[in-house]
Amino acid sequence: MSHPSLHTPHEDTICALATAPGGALGLIRVSGPRALVAVSSICRNDMTAFPANTIHYTHIVNGGEVIDEVMVSIFRSPHSYTGEDSVEISCHGSRYIINNVLELLVQHGCRMAGPGEFTMRAYLNGKMDLSQAESVADLIASTNKATHQLAMLQLRGGFSSELSRLREQLLKLTSLLELELDFSDHEDLEFADRSELLSLTKEIDSRVISLAQSFEAGQVIKQGIPVAIVGKTNVGKSTLLNTLLKDDRAIVSNIHGTTRDTIEEAIDLNGVQFRFIDTAGIRQTQDEVEKIGIDRTLQKVKEARIVIWLLDQRPTSGEIDEMHALSEGKRTIYVHNKADLVDMDHFVPYIEPLSLISAKKGEGIDNLKRRIYEEAEQAGLTTNSSDIIVTNARHYDALLRAHDSIHRVLDGLDQHLSGDLLSEDLRQALSCLAEITGQGQITTNEVLGNIFKNFCVGK
Amino acid sequence: MSHPSLHTPHEDTICALATAPGGALGLIRVSGPRALVAVSSICRNDMTAFPANTIHYTHIVNGGEVIDEVMVSIFRSPHSYTGEDSVEISCHGSRYIINNVLELLVQHGCRMAGPGEFTMRAYLNGKMDLSQAESVADLIASTNKATHQLAMLQLRGGFSSELSRLREQLLKLTSLLELELDFSDHEDLEFADRSELLSLTKEIDSRVISLAQSFEAGQVIKQGIPVAIVGKTNVGKSTLLNTLLKDDRAIVSNIHGTTRDTIEEAIDLNGVQFRFIDTAGIRQTQDEVEKIGIDRTLQKVKEARIVIWLLDQRPTSGEIDEMHALSEGKRTIYVHNKADLVDMDHFVPYIEPLSLISAKKGEGIDNLKRRIYEEAEQAGLTTNSSDIIVTNARHYDALLRAHDSIHRVLDGLDQHLSGDLLSEDLRQALSCLAEITGQGQITTNEVLGNIFKNFCVGK
Repeated sequence: MSHPSLHTPHEDTICALATAPGGALGLIRVSGPRALVAVSSICRNDMTAFPANTIHYTHIVNGGEVIDEVMVSIFRSPHSYTGEDSVEISCHGSRYIINNVLELLVQHGCRMAGPGEFTMRAYLNGKMDLSQAESVADLIASTNKATHQLAMLQLRGGFSSELSRLREQLLKLTSLLELELDFSDHEDLEFADRSELLSLTKEIDSRVISLAQSFEAGQVIKQGIPVAIVGKTNVGKSTLLNTLLKDDRAIVSNIHGTTRDTIEEAIDLNGVQFRFIDTAGIRQTQDEVEKIGIDRTLQKVKEARIVIWLLDQRPTSGEIDEMHALSEGKRTIYVHNKADLVDMDHFVPYIEPLSLISAKKGEGIDNLKRRIYEEAEQAGLTTNSSDIIVTNARHYDALLRAHDSIHRVLDGLDQHLSGDLLSEDLRQALSCLAEITGQGQITTNEVLGNIFKNFCVGK
Repeated sequence: MSHPSLHTPHEDTICALATAPGGALGLIRVSGPRALVAVSSICRNDMTAFPANTIHYTHIVNGGEVIDEVMVSIFRSPHSYTGEDSVEISCHGSRYIINNVLELLVQHGCRMAGPGEFTMRAYLNGKMDLSQAESVADLIASTNKATHQLAMLQLRGGFSSELSRLREQLLKLTSLLELELDFSDHEDLEFADRSELLSLTKEIDSRVISLAQSFEAGQVIKQGIPVAIVGKTNVGKSTLLNTLLKDDRAIVSNIHGTTRDTIEEAIDLNGVQFRFIDTAGIRQTQDEVEKIGIDRTLQKVKEARIVIWLLDQRPTSGEIDEMHALSEGKRTIYVHNKADLVDMDHFVPYIEPLSLISAKKGEGIDNLKRRIYEEAEQAGLTTNSSDIIVTNARHYDALLRAHDSIHRVLDGLDQHLSGDLLSEDLRQALSCLAEITGQGQITTNEVLGNIFKNFCVGK
């Protein structure tokens, strides 16, 4: 992978704790031209001549004091994460030890790394493009199969190849326009070329639009697909929610040694995260303060992509109107709760299709989960490993601007503008797409700073 | 290092996350006979033939799905932490990825490790003795130079060598007794041997007592040396405490990437932790409820090893009596606060030695800190790297029992008991000391379970 070498080589050597503090072990990363020298200065052994990709047992020492017994891994440029000489020190996870090792490294000429600085160096040294670098933060933050898959596809260059294809097509368009310019004396040639240009431009635009549109789904997948369970009071909304949550939590808790940040009222179905909106408080009331709370809940229900309408008897036409208003434009699942109280031989579904469950007894829950997942799937909110879904606001913004430029090209073609007038817009479209992978000339240090500032330190 | 092979070899392969969850990277440890096979089964590469102490870039895969791009470190028995074949997987710190890798390892025949199980295996495979193994948990928990030094000395075998010397002396004693038995017909021989026996036994006992006595200091050092700042209301106790704390916090916060568990009102002086007892509420009162609170505080002041008596004028004889009662048996530092209000040309210290400070302006604080540290030093509560201080209750208990047995030997020698009666007590003393390093026969799986249950998982 190559990119314009706009950036000066990195003269300094950076260090940081790459793991979370507080474990049995801590991993300290050191990268830069002086990595091996700096680590050798604080160790019992001189590692400067140690071969690449080898691990060594040694002591970190400060004068006569032994700070820790550690394992040290040696990586040599360009075969390292950053592309620079790098060392990883695996030490005991004591904060005293970690602070000491970092302090010693700083005393021996290293600098504490900023957020994402190792990955930024990987980008600047051509180990990955910018969209791949950004996916590293998404990968680390991924909590379920769907977000993991999106980040992994991006890291492995899926999005980059797609963008590369689009840029090739834009370049083809540019050269076709140049060809047209060369033959501009021959009026009869123009129209033939123009129709080809038009169709190619439309094709590119349609792909750019579809990528930009995927951003909304990307955001929903990242944050969890919002689901509202609505229904009259006492129909079993809370019981259903608890039953859904309980099952999920049991699955998660059987792995020791990892903690799960509790996302309130979220469950994972086939690796996709669903986020439940608490609608328990919705009911008719005269209390003005309570009304404000209910309005706020109704506002949140509006964000729902899926509505589970929980019933325990045939709804009145008034209720149907109310529920239709609530679930307009959303995928709705009708569910009859308290199936354990139903005489199944004589039960006639009063609305179609109607799922029967008993939230209390946990009956029909697996079926309901399958329904919820299917609705998400039909709404295009699940992923498969080859779907490219844009999840990054910076990429979305660049795609929208690329679309604007391409749209101006389409207008220009419509208005029979000359090729040299169109080529400026084409150049802009190309430059917008190049921004995403960081191959454009406008990838300034400021832009890079903004991109990496939200990374973890140590990555 | 060798120990009796009481334990069956480990047929199973264990795995665990060794770093805290939530960082940029996570380190997963795998140890046991199937470590290389299991990791190979979930990777793109077959690592079973990879050489020891090498690092490899690979992908963790689950069927067609790429779980992560990782670095894998290969260790081979006996040259690993546990002494077994081991693999360390450095993956991205996503909880989804970590859960998946661990799940895959379990599917391929590994078992989730219990707390401290890697270190327990290191002990069982003769890589370290039991007291060294225990020091690993202390090392990880160490938050300052003093606790780190104690743990590191123990890990590096300082305590073990000391115990080994004591056992050698006990064995010498035993053989002298046997010699005596052989010559038991020669009455004139007895007394000469007995005096040598007596002096050797006393020497051993004195060392055992001194080790056992160090436990109290060890506990104080581990928990922080308690310091009380006492004095009348409005003399500046809170201001002084804040000044002491503020300085310390500023020093700590200049290292990124590590968080410090806040220990309320604790400061670090020359690497030793001091814990301040809040005495702000002590004053004369008629309120019964307030009196209870004050009594509770006075109780805590009793735990203090050092008392800072803060004054702003000559104390009355009543105050002197009150303060002497409070600081009895403790090291007391007399401090005159509000030195900025004092006319230094005419100031006569009304008590000796008297430190002058201005807590408000931060004047004299460095001197005061030096005084606090010196008092701790004189109380034997600071360490230097060669001091052996017992910090573990299990070791303390074993030392007390060893002392009991040795004391019975001394009594027996006094009462001219025969050698065969004494040797049983000597055997018991030897066995108590052997318990500490785990070289005794009573190191059952239950004892081991109790020792390692408080370790981190992954260590």
